[in-house]
Amino acid sequence: MIAMGSKKRRGILERLNAGEVVVGDGGYVMQLERRGYVKAGHWTPEAAVEHPEAVRQLHREFLRAGANVLQTFTFYCSEDKLEISGNVTNITGAQINEAACDLAREVANEDDALVAGCVSKTPCYVKSHSEAEVKAIFKKQMDDFLKKDIDFFIVEFVDHVEEAGWAVEVLKTSGKPVGATLCISPHGDMHGVPPGECAVRLVKAGADIVGVNCHLDPLTCIRTVKLMKEGLEKAGLKAHLMIQPLGFHTPECNLGGYTSLPEYPFAMETRAITRWDIHKYAREAYNAGIRYIGGCCGFEPYHIRAIAEELAAERGFLPPASEKHGLWGAALEMHTKPWVRARARREYWENLLPASGRPKCPSMATPEDDYEKHYLLFRPEQVVLSLM
Amino acid sequence: MIAMGSKKRRGILERLNAGEVVVGDGGYVMQLERRGYVKAGHWTPEAAVEHPEAVRQLHREFLRAGANVLQTFTFYCSEDKLEISGNVTNITGAQINEAACDLAREVANEDDALVAGCVSKTPCYVKSHSEAEVKAIFKKQMDDFLKKDIDFFIVEFVDHVEEAGWAVEVLKTSGKPVGATLCISPHGDMHGVPPGECAVRLVKAGADIVGVNCHLDPLTCIRTVKLMKEGLEKAGLKAHLMIQPLGFHTPECNLGGYTSLPEYPFAMETRAITRWDIHKYAREAYNAGIRYIGGCCGFEPYHIRAIAEELAAERGFLPPASEKHGLWGAALEMHTKPWVRARARREYWENLLPASGRPKCPSMATPEDDYEKHYLLFRPEQVVLSLM
Amino acid sequence: MIAMGSKKRRGILERLNAGEVVVGDGGYVMQLERRGYVKAGHWTPEAAVEHPEAVRQLHREFLRAGANVLQTFTFYCSEDKLEISGNVTNITGAQINEAACDLAREVANEDDALVAGCVSKTPCYVKSHSEAEVKAIFKKQMDDFLKKDIDFFIVEFVDHVEEAGWAVEVLKTSGKPVGATLCISPHGDMHGVPPGECAVRLVKAGADIVGVNCHLDPLTCIRTVKLMKEGLEKAGLKAHLMIQPLGFHTPECNLGGYTSLPEYPFAMETRAITRWDIHKYAREAYNAGIRYIGGCCGFEPYHIRAIAEELAAERGFLPPASEKHGLWGAALEMHTKPWVRARARREYWENLLPASGRPKCPSMATPEDDYEKHYLLFRPEQVVLSLM
Amino acid sequence: MIAMGSKKRRGILERLNAGEVVVGDGGYVMQLERRGYVKAGHWTPEAAVEHPEAVRQLHREFLRAGANVLQTFTFYCSEDKLEISGNVTNITGAQINEAACDLAREVANEDDALVAGCVSKTPCYVKSHSEAEVKAIFKKQMDDFLKKDIDFFIVEFVDHVEEAGWAVEVLKTSGKPVGATLCISPHGDMHGVPPGECAVRLVKAGADIVGVNCHLDPLTCIRTVKLMKEGLEKAGLKAHLMIQPLGFHTPECNLGGYTSLPEYPFAMETRAITRWDIHKYAREAYNAGIRYIGGCCGFEPYHIRAIAEELAAERGFLPPASEKHGLWGAALEMHTKPWVRARARREYWENLLPASGRPKCPSMATPEDDYEKHYLLFRPEQVVLSLM
Repeated sequence: MIAMGSKKRRGILERLNAGEVVVGDGGYVMQLERRGYVKAGHWTPEAAVEHPEAVRQLHREFLRAGANVLQTFTFYCSEDKLEISGNVTNITGAQINEAACDLAREVANEDDALVAGCVSKTPCYVKSHSEAEVKAIFKKQMDDFLKKDIDFFIVEFVDHVEEAGWAVEVLKTSGKPVGATLCISPHGDMHGVPPGECAVRLVKAGADIVGVNCHLDPLTCIRTVKLMKEGLEKAGLKAHLMIQPLGFHTPECNLGGYTSLPEYPFAMETRAITRWDIHKYAREAYNAGIRYIGGCCGFEPYHIRAIAEELAAERGFLPPASEKHGLWGAALEMHTKPWVRARARREYWENLLPASGRPKCPSMATPEDDYEKHYLLFRPEQVVLSLM
Repeated sequence: MIAMGSKKRRGILERLNAGEVVVGDGGYVMQLERRGYVKAGHWTPEAAVEHPEAVRQLHREFLRAGANVLQTFTFYCSEDKLEISGNVTNITGAQINEAACDLAREVANEDDALVAGCVSKTPCYVKSHSEAEVKAIFKKQMDDFLKKDIDFFIVEFVDHVEEAGWAVEVLKTSGKPVGATLCISPHGDMHGVPPGECAVRLVKAGADIVGVNCHLDPLTCIRTVKLMKEGLEKAGLKAHLMIQPLGFHTPECNLGGYTSLPEYPFAMETRAITRWDIHKYAREAYNAGIRYIGGCCGFEPYHIRAIAEELAAERGFLPPASEKHGLWGAALEMHTKPWVRARARREYWENLLPASGRPKCPSMATPEDDYEKHYLLFRPEQVVLSLM
Repeated sequence: MIAMGSKKRRGILERLNAGEVVVGDGGYVMQLERRGYVKAGHWTPEAAVEHPEAVRQLHREFLRAGANVLQTFTFYCSEDKLEISGNVTNITGAQINEAACDLAREVANEDDALVAGCVSKTPCYVKSHSEAEVKAIFKKQMDDFLKKDIDFFIVEFVDHVEEAGWAVEVLKTSGKPVGATLCISPHGDMHGVPPGECAVRLVKAGADIVGVNCHLDPLTCIRTVKLMKEGLEKAGLKAHLMIQPLGFHTPECNLGGYTSLPEYPFAMETRAITRWDIHKYAREAYNAGIRYIGGCCGFEPYHIRAIAEELAAERGFLPPASEKHGLWGAALEMHTKPWVRARARREYWENLLPASGRPKCPSMATPEDDYEKHYLLFRPEQVVLSLM
Repeated sequence: MIAMGSKKRRGILERLNAGEVVVGDGGYVMQLERRGYVKAGHWTPEAAVEHPEAVRQLHREFLRAGANVLQTFTFYCSEDKLEISGNVTNITGAQINEAACDLAREVANEDDALVAGCVSKTPCYVKSHSEAEVKAIFKKQMDDFLKKDIDFFIVEFVDHVEEAGWAVEVLKTSGKPVGATLCISPHGDMHGVPPGECAVRLVKAGADIVGVNCHLDPLTCIRTVKLMKEGLEKAGLKAHLMIQPLGFHTPECNLGGYTSLPEYPFAMETRAITRWDIHKYAREAYNAGIRYIGGCCGFEPYHIRAIAEELAAERGFLPPASEKHGLWGAALEMHTKPWVRARARREYWENLLPASGRPKCPSMATPEDDYEKHYLLFRPEQVVLSLM
């Protein structure tokens, strides 16, 4: 990193315990879908084996943007999920998991970043609801990771706290730190467990870091993590807080998150957040006491850079990719057009309300409410609007 | 490409003369800005030397998406422009031009794609308005290219037809085919020369292919190319037609194009086109008789793939990246959520009006009209849209 | 009314006890402001004396639209309010109150409508918070009314349940029925008393009918009345329910209601509800068990007619003004333009999402939150969005 | 009028020749539809006989708002139109025409306003295209008017200049001044005659005042009148200019005007213009040299007042209804809420972009293009707005 000097690699808890900001990476599957390497609907990570150069390059871009952690590209890489998707016929989950560890490690070592081995929700949980079967799946994936040089684990994109707890219990047996992020809304998990209680359960299961990822926009996710924090405080428990939200505006979503939006997954462009939205998000997350701050689907490298730029004073340095970015638009000062030069200032971008260019389109959609109907948790009298 | 068999590389005119659809590539500078390798405001291509892996990867993604041509990453790479930007101190324009040719060639050879050496407008033109000086700049850049293995030339992003004509005259001395795309609106170039007359001048200067690129959205660009075609027909001239528009919705822009929008360049996310917009665009461009169809700023690899998918029947094959894409959302058929499965059909995506998720934002902006004021070409009676 | 035959005038409770739907009238002050007889900002009803023909005509339009009750045009007609406004120098409150009673009676007798004498919140309450002083004001106004032939009383537009309770206690001494509607949100009154508890207090004070009026859009007001109903049921109390919401869309409003919107009061046009919105509202209010259904600011005669048309089957007749209205657009069947004729059906209007014609404007505003700050009742984690 | 003193009634040409601003009245049929007296789809004026008090009151409101002219409520009151509509069985056109003249005269005499006898397009023109038949219809209507005390004639809402010219020729035989307003767009009339040529033909037919009314929003109508003015100047002709546009925003309409919008006629609320839009309109119309400035459908009394207030300096007085209106929101200064008091200034209202409150609705619609298809006059290259 710029003017960083050489640092010894320190562990995730060492960093968080020291009060440092840890910048996470962004979303892999949606970005690699757009680049041509992941199939939407399946969302499986076989590209780690099939096209390692593409995964390596995206890792590198996140690293360059300021990420302190590279997550292995192992989303949905449990054997049961791979089998269902039917997308990958000649490659085993173990091959993907191992290749993904190598790729993340290789790039992380270009700087002093950490590698997090990632597991996500399993089809098995909803199908069998068997603790033994689900834990066996997580154990198998963990064993793949442990053959490689990873620094800690992340359980992510789980919408039942019970399943996430099981994963944490398995992964803790490795002796490595474990973070756990649920893809839940402020209303709680799929069984109606409120965020505060979810956090308590995860910490009791052994999680060192808890929070949320995916499914909802940054400000909504901050609200959920705040509720987790309150729950932990009430229970007298301590844990680090983590957040990796969507890079999309989803003000009208409830429990089902962005999959319930009509635009999911092939017309989400309209909802993409800007780098200036990220500045607000990073500041607000920091102010809420969250110290592991990254992104999920929709977070591209420049969004991660915006986190690192917003928190540059707190971290003490800018990321490498800021060589190619004027803070708050400063590089526009030399633009040939005077009205573009006039945009080379923070006030302009902070206050801009960007037009959609789509006068035939509405500003808000009607989310599919089947999700809510299925899970009986929707309280129609309380539709919560969150706006960035 | 899928089921393609091996083909001998044939030249650009050979392909176009045979009536083939040539799929262009997408936008480099804005995409590489987001990936952390290009500085907005400068938009110079030093990454070809500094970070070849990033440029190579983006080339590869466009190739994989179906592009038949890879343009050298040499935008704004004239010596006078590099000097003004002050962004590149230790690297010469010649170094960039040569490295960029090698990168494009390397990747193009992974399939049977062509390499186009690209030149763009020079600061010199507006500053000196000297034909000799401007031509010398283009000559120097051409000489860099001719040291390498390129297939043809493209003059792009020029908003004065006079300058574009000078470039064409220089490049034609190489003996290679030349394409020329102006960044103009249906109102004409910066001196008020209408599109039809622009096309005539370019063809008379020696261009084999003419059209537009950048500055405006796909459907507006098609209108401009249609006016070019009409102009050529009236003049009894023939040339191939080419289009590489913005990947953004810009319905309210006039002469100044997207740089006059308040969102340019750091809040254009809202305006990004979807892959389904591309299907309409590709079909309409094809129906207008345009056979070289690509994109400019805002066109990511998946947009290029959408061109290739829309015109798969005409071309006879799908691109490699379609392995990771169900046509018209078909891969959603195996999604776990029933309402997402219901989206696995063309009718759904064709008719969707995506919500912006930004209820505090307008749908259209007020473009800076200084551009028009400066150039005295704006005819207010021609703006059919009147807004109180 | 159409095919009604002559009926003897029956009292409000007689009608409600019989399970009849009572259609209220619409908003007077905003409509008469637009007609040129009321001053916005003051909102006082001196037009009853100054321009009786204008008030009489609006009464007649509401009657013709189906209203069963005409409210006296006595809004803000307490002596203390008139004095503060400084708008009326030569006319006493008593003169207005008496003239207003005569006007309402005169028009009501053209059919079998009832006349409700109306009182609204007093500046005195906030200023002195003296029960004796506030009650004296209400007593004085009641005495004016009792000189005339009115059928019952309505306390309306009060945002503190305490003040409304005092008004009810005074008016009950007349021996006439009393309805009481608060201008509160689902969050409760200005002191944070929840709707359920508000309803209980009003009924205990003697109100025969309780509900809400003004400040928020129809669907939000229905939510509030439902909460009132729940409160009464839990307390084992009974009362008739009444609703007279805004005729404007206010999805983003909280406690402060529409006065906190940037558009209040002179740019509310954009938010006006259509007659088709009213059909949904009337049906939903009816389904919620509300039987006194009218409107407040923004409700014009045709909105009242839409209530009467939606509930025509339940009431057994259409209002006189339906002579000039085809149900669900039926009269368009004879339009000269075929595409307008195609709109002569319920499905068309029920599903139409009307465009604003204002592409430079947002769809939602940021309400002034000073109101919330002043009253310390705003809970930022719960911004409630209600959408019609 | 306020501080006006008594004036002798002077004719329309006397006023316009003296350079005075003549304020027109607003729209009758849509407003009386909302009040319950006109049937949408038919739009015939039988209320002049059936409910004279309603027509009288609306006349009075326009007069009070500052109108110098009251138009007889005789829209679509030709015998052939009344017959087709089938709406009026026991009342003859002559009865309506005569009653309408009396009502307008009665109210006009409350001040010094003029009465204009109005004729509009006839079904006969499209059906028979017979000059003799059409002229006979206009002659009959004129004879009705001439039995009464009217000051001049207005031909309005005609979309073929040929028919309007015939009407002018007939009415000129009365010896009274004649104004003629077409309901056309800047593209011209239904036969493609451009506005400039339309104006020339009308003046040659004998019109003293020419312009446009209805169909399109204020700023679009100003553009059309400007084109008329240019046409007259080129032809060396002179006439007074007149404008009475819609009180709705219709930015996306072409030839067909607002009837081609999906919202017509029962969901136009969203598009209603504010009083502040009127200030801009009145000023721009005045600056364009138009001196007869009024409104059509959608113009309520407060919109007419806004014309009179914007042009108060030019006219030398405010209208009576300004007693109940603080200029530019001045009366809000005494509002109890501080943030509403802050709106008591011109700058606030001039710059406000009102939110629609409808986040599920788009900002622009797709007009029915059948109109254009039917008339073969639509030139797609003239639509500057392109939407994907």
